[in-house]
Amino acid sequence: MALPVVRIADIAQYENQDVELRGWLYSRRSSGKLHFLQLRDGSGIIQAVVFKGDVSPELFTQADHLGQETSLLVRGTVRKDARSPLGFELGVKDLQVVHAADGYPITPKEHGVAYLMENRHLWLRSTRQNVILRVRATVVKAIRDFFDNDGFTLVDAPIFTPAACEGTSTLFEVPYFDLGQAYLTQSGQLYMEAAAMALGKAYCFGPTFRAEKSKTRRHLTEFWMVEPEVAYMTLEEDMVLAERLVSSVVQRVLEKHGAELKGVLERDTSKLEAVKAPFPRITYSEAIERLQKAGHPAQWGDDFGGDEETVLANQFDRPVIVHRYPTDLKAFYFKRDPANPKVALGMDVLAPEGYGEIIGGGQREDDLATLEARIEEHHLPKEAFGWYLDLRRYGSVPHAGFGLGVERTVGWLCGLHHVRETIPFARMMERITP
Amino acid sequence: MALPVVRIADIAQYENQDVELRGWLYSRRSSGKLHFLQLRDGSGIIQAVVFKGDVSPELFTQADHLGQETSLLVRGTVRKDARSPLGFELGVKDLQVVHAADGYPITPKEHGVAYLMENRHLWLRSTRQNVILRVRATVVKAIRDFFDNDGFTLVDAPIFTPAACEGTSTLFEVPYFDLGQAYLTQSGQLYMEAAAMALGKAYCFGPTFRAEKSKTRRHLTEFWMVEPEVAYMTLEEDMVLAERLVSSVVQRVLEKHGAELKGVLERDTSKLEAVKAPFPRITYSEAIERLQKAGHPAQWGDDFGGDEETVLANQFDRPVIVHRYPTDLKAFYFKRDPANPKVALGMDVLAPEGYGEIIGGGQREDDLATLEARIEEHHLPKEAFGWYLDLRRYGSVPHAGFGLGVERTVGWLCGLHHVRETIPFARMMERITP
Repeated sequence: MALPVVRIADIAQYENQDVELRGWLYSRRSSGKLHFLQLRDGSGIIQAVVFKGDVSPELFTQADHLGQETSLLVRGTVRKDARSPLGFELGVKDLQVVHAADGYPITPKEHGVAYLMENRHLWLRSTRQNVILRVRATVVKAIRDFFDNDGFTLVDAPIFTPAACEGTSTLFEVPYFDLGQAYLTQSGQLYMEAAAMALGKAYCFGPTFRAEKSKTRRHLTEFWMVEPEVAYMTLEEDMVLAERLVSSVVQRVLEKHGAELKGVLERDTSKLEAVKAPFPRITYSEAIERLQKAGHPAQWGDDFGGDEETVLANQFDRPVIVHRYPTDLKAFYFKRDPANPKVALGMDVLAPEGYGEIIGGGQREDDLATLEARIEEHHLPKEAFGWYLDLRRYGSVPHAGFGLGVERTVGWLCGLHHVRETIPFARMMERITP
Repeated sequence: MALPVVRIADIAQYENQDVELRGWLYSRRSSGKLHFLQLRDGSGIIQAVVFKGDVSPELFTQADHLGQETSLLVRGTVRKDARSPLGFELGVKDLQVVHAADGYPITPKEHGVAYLMENRHLWLRSTRQNVILRVRATVVKAIRDFFDNDGFTLVDAPIFTPAACEGTSTLFEVPYFDLGQAYLTQSGQLYMEAAAMALGKAYCFGPTFRAEKSKTRRHLTEFWMVEPEVAYMTLEEDMVLAERLVSSVVQRVLEKHGAELKGVLERDTSKLEAVKAPFPRITYSEAIERLQKAGHPAQWGDDFGGDEETVLANQFDRPVIVHRYPTDLKAFYFKRDPANPKVALGMDVLAPEGYGEIIGGGQREDDLATLEARIEEHHLPKEAFGWYLDLRRYGSVPHAGFGLGVERTVGWLCGLHHVRETIPFARMMERITP
């Protein structure tokens, strides 16, 4: 009779039953009459115990010579095992090699990052990368569920765009048939503004691109961003939406991956447990004061980099929202504060522990004449923004939104040093392979 | 006291209560002492009734002169109304213009498609486009839920790729720093094969690109595709996965949008109700026989275009799966049928009613030497596939997957003539605006 084919993640349902597992050999050790095979199938890792008395001599010998990452079918009995993180082990009755791997390039010894990145297609098989990838998937799911359950409609923004949203220096250009150049999107925001006027509450969630010549640990040329935009929403409501989203994502990740974050990634999850709305809010001017009090030479009008963000974020136990930045630091589409036109109705959410800005957003300029003047001041090609100005010609309303970067969020939640591990196949200035 | 601010979709919870609605004027008509304003807020449309005896003379006059798409705050009482599709109307007590729109470019009269596409940012506000966008969002959600609930992990495939998956003639090239050219992905499949070896069951879901010089009603240069890939899966199981996915998506769309599909898009939903697993399966050879019997001049070895797909699909009341195509028609990575090497273990799912192929996939070649030979036969640059060959070097396993195109699926479910309406901002050979 054929045995049930079971995934390791579902093993608890099969206690004391015989099952077939299909996977790969992660590692093994031997102890006389016992071989311990760590079998992985992508959903988990189980210890498969080969006892000399249970199998043929040939199979017992073979089990001691399997190469790392050999693909295997293993049949046996699911047994409770209190010592294993999984809670179960497999008593092996039979084992069949699907493909014998030899000389697997990633061994338990240390490898350099460049080597691991070049072998990213294999590196993904490691327990650490497995956890990061699954946390990333949970972050994406939590974000989408949050918006889908809150009355938002997903509206995919286009990737090919005819013009730049925020300057042209960091755009990737693509020759496009007879139409000249197209540019890869840096943000779906302008399109989401159109979508918000059509659907009230809209969001896009897709890859965005920056051709920045930066090699920092926070930069990728290709990264995923979610961008909600809501008609009739103000800056204050925008901040509430942002903190609700972030807390909801953090709670979901803790529920689903708390044990792995601690056990595999050695993440101090107590710092994540504090991440609950409301988040502290400070104005940019207050932020400057705080920086100066902390001995930092920041002046009103300066933009914040990683250093300033870290000093500020370290003063709080949860993300901090900095709002009302100097108008000159912000893009043309930000609405100025009617109470003080020197500042824009923008806000950033800074993650704790030095992870920096994970959200940037604010209220958009909704007055046609003001927006036209801003486009001129910024020397932007007015004809490219004709459709965008239409949104202020026909039933303009106050509206706001923001963008949250997936990779920085995953990096923060997993406690990673570099964003390159937060995306399955990182693209950077010096890397487009594998 | 401030009234509750309510979205039209939630109106049923506020029967006989006073509320504030925030939206835009979709259309209006008058009948002596009554003005009927159709107010839209993106979540729905409600009839707001202004009765002369209920409001000031000024407001009553103003309500008869509001331009289409004027943005409005409307306050009044929610009343049951059996005649309206929504079930409720609003008895207006007060009304406040946020921004008076004048000369809205899209009027109830007929407009040409080029004009509507050029005004896509406004066209999205129409009831018809609203329904299509929300169906699209539901399709995306249904697909993601299907895979997330079935043990799959989302693994985003890269957009920048160093080489072509299926030939170079339809690739978009992007100058990439000092690394020469990058190409925009045509499919995440090869990366999902690596992901399946790491996670067992993986899928990607993102935009893909084809620089095809085609202007047909089925072509976009930028379209979204979901691509599952499963380790240890065979062609037969792949077909089961495909039909389970498609039926699940169709049922979800019918549940959520059945009334709108019929009422707004005039879709014959009885044809969608038949879409339940199992789907009929025919081999390519049987398909050729069926075509010939139907008087079509197809010969064994011919590829199928729209014509052949329609003739075949019309013979069934639900999607039909055609499997085992001639090896020569299929990409290098398809596994040949061990029982007949002239055919590949590939399959396509053809939607009914002339909507053509919505899924293409199959079992992948898992033998290193065979795959190397195939890469050579296809004159592909072997060095670019080194990492892909590694998947056959280290623990190779049988595996399969497929790709489902979102736009064709939405076009079929909504009964649309052209895919350009299935995506918020369509990109075609002749269009990258707005």
